[in-house]
Amino acid sequence: MRHTINLVVENTLGTLSRISGLFSSRGYQIDSISVGAGEENDTSRMTIVTHGDDQVIEQITKQLNKVVDVIKVSDLTNESFVNRELALIKVSATPNVRSEILQTVDVFRGKVVDISPRTLTVEATGSEDKINAIISMLRPFGLREVARTGRVALKREFQGEA
Amino acid sequence: MRHTINLVVENTLGTLSRISGLFSSRGYQIDSISVGAGEENDTSRMTIVTHGDDQVIEQITKQLNKVVDVIKVSDLTNESFVNRELALIKVSATPNVRSEILQTVDVFRGKVVDISPRTLTVEATGSEDKINAIISMLRPFGLREVARTGRVALKREFQGEA
Repeated sequence: MRHTINLVVENTLGTLSRISGLFSSRGYQIDSISVGAGEENDTSRMTIVTHGDDQVIEQITKQLNKVVDVIKVSDLTNESFVNRELALIKVSATPNVRSEILQTVDVFRGKVVDISPRTLTVEATGSEDKINAIISMLRPFGLREVARTGRVALKREFQGEA
Repeated sequence: MRHTINLVVENTLGTLSRISGLFSSRGYQIDSISVGAGEENDTSRMTIVTHGDDQVIEQITKQLNKVVDVIKVSDLTNESFVNRELALIKVSATPNVRSEILQTVDVFRGKVVDISPRTLTVEATGSEDKINAIISMLRPFGLREVARTGRVALKREFQGEA
């Protein structure tokens, strides 16, 4: 099963290496990882997407809790959560196919962020499925480069919360 | 100086751990990292933002090139490039301050992606500076959680390109 794990960590050297090592030493692939500044100074929040046996991932989660620089670990998999990713997609675009590409970009509410005589670079945001869909639609024109952020996710809040 | 490094890597176990280890073993902090699927199957593209002495970073870049699973390394620092990041920001929002928060979100062209009686969760995309600015504006209301993707970047294309 696919798991989305949220970590709050202190900004110390080597944390990322230790955390990714925990996954690889068990033969677990990290599908995507995003690391950026967290809500407090000197902390970062990481979102890791991985897949595999639930029990093994539960073990990894427990071990993550024991890593010195890890402040908090939450596995969002069984929660309701908001998730988004961002992609920059550079596609071959000679003038004769440009309008066709722009139509596709429009449907996905993407934005053109760079243009040259032979390329367009598009920014798209949304769920992983949406990003996969726009990439599939643009692939036939010739993908030059794709940079995806990987998923970030936050738990949804409900009525009656504390 | 701040460096933005783009890597294309094969999806093999342990790559992330090896790459982040190269930075930490030299005492270099990774400010942000984003890893997502690349343009070809079985490859990922990583964007690493780091800061420090140019010469040391050049050495790290050379060493990255020697890591088995690394297909391509480019330091975009002296290039013209498009860069974006995405943030999910959960902020305390009782009904009496909600409209004030929504105005701020509007100015930054953010989107509300979740709402509860006491919180709003906002999606924002843009440059790092823009994301810093919206977070600074929302901080006084009480930041609950912030998940940032870290920067993704692609080189700009110019006229006369091949």
